[in-house]
Amino acid sequence: MELHGYFRSSASYRVRIGLNLKGLEYDYYAVNLLKSEQKGDTYRKLNPQGLVPALVDGDTVLTQSLAILEWLDDRHPEPALLPRDSLQRARIRALSYTIACDIQPVQNLRILKYLQSEFAVDDEQKTGWVRQWIHEGFSALEQQLDPAPFAAGEEPGLFECCLIPQIYNAERFGMDIADYPAIHRIARACAEIPAFIEARPENQPDSTL
Amino acid sequence: MELHGYFRSSASYRVRIGLNLKGLEYDYYAVNLLKSEQKGDTYRKLNPQGLVPALVDGDTVLTQSLAILEWLDDRHPEPALLPRDSLQRARIRALSYTIACDIQPVQNLRILKYLQSEFAVDDEQKTGWVRQWIHEGFSALEQQLDPAPFAAGEEPGLFECCLIPQIYNAERFGMDIADYPAIHRIARACAEIPAFIEARPENQPDSTL
Repeated sequence: MELHGYFRSSASYRVRIGLNLKGLEYDYYAVNLLKSEQKGDTYRKLNPQGLVPALVDGDTVLTQSLAILEWLDDRHPEPALLPRDSLQRARIRALSYTIACDIQPVQNLRILKYLQSEFAVDDEQKTGWVRQWIHEGFSALEQQLDPAPFAAGEEPGLFECCLIPQIYNAERFGMDIADYPAIHRIARACAEIPAFIEARPENQPDSTL
Repeated sequence: MELHGYFRSSASYRVRIGLNLKGLEYDYYAVNLLKSEQKGDTYRKLNPQGLVPALVDGDTVLTQSLAILEWLDDRHPEPALLPRDSLQRARIRALSYTIACDIQPVQNLRILKYLQSEFAVDDEQKTGWVRQWIHEGFSALEQQLDPAPFAAGEEPGLFECCLIPQIYNAERFGMDIADYPAIHRIARACAEIPAFIEARPENQPDSTL
């Protein structure tokens, strides 16, 4: 499989964790967002939306990180990213979407660029914006996470694929994750797991370009 | 079942369509976003995130519209909201997330309020912002939709649950859906189906409050 992504992209990071948790091998192709390579003709042949990541498996091209993770779970069921019980699955999806639909989309690169270029938002205002949405989402998650090591119990899965990249963003904007004890606990547990360590932005080949 | 939502909320509208497509009965409880009822203690007991909708089924409370729709599809498989084939399912989820993760989150009420109060964005700028993200997403969708009547083929499903509320928002901001022929075709097909007609904002009891 080929993963086309960018080291700092949350959505790419989610898929790297998922592939690693499943123990699946893949070749990594860097798409430099700072050079707008995702908007170029070559990449748009993979994904007309011009957003990373894209996962190529033979003739198949998959886009949208959460759709890719669900597909990986369909095709390679063990270890599972989602619980078997449908109610538990709904709970884990809801927690994941709190990040993927309510936090991350409003603070990604294209949005921040627009705020700066069109609304003349300065760095301090930008940081305030990012922190506001992360804080709102993380505060809600704090009330919904059980004391088990991970959101679904004994093993990390879909939620942790979303959470760890979001924490990376939060820390880039100077937030202290210790303010969110349940999230902090999950972050510490994931920090010990090779699948998460190998997926980190700083461990990708394009981090040093 | 009880659906707690708001007539104009995209996420509530998605779930209304899904429940109607499944032929499931529900009681509708209006949560007035303009009065911030979603932030009140009563509603937050249902959903600590303070966002609509919430679906109550006996002792179970479900949140996040896409998690609710997936759960409905698990529990009430016919008619299906997602295709059986895992690759087709990934495709429909990716199209749905283009709306639910990349378009809708950046133009919902809490975001627009923040832009106005913190960045002094005026009405014209706000309209430009909303149209920009809808246009970017809809343009990508145009390239990915097949000529079948609906995204997955002969029947509407998860994607149409997301698309029709997004079109409602686009039209509120003065966009002409005829500019997007594939989307327009799906919109016209859905406009004939009772499940979609009954779910419309103007057909909800709180639309006249």
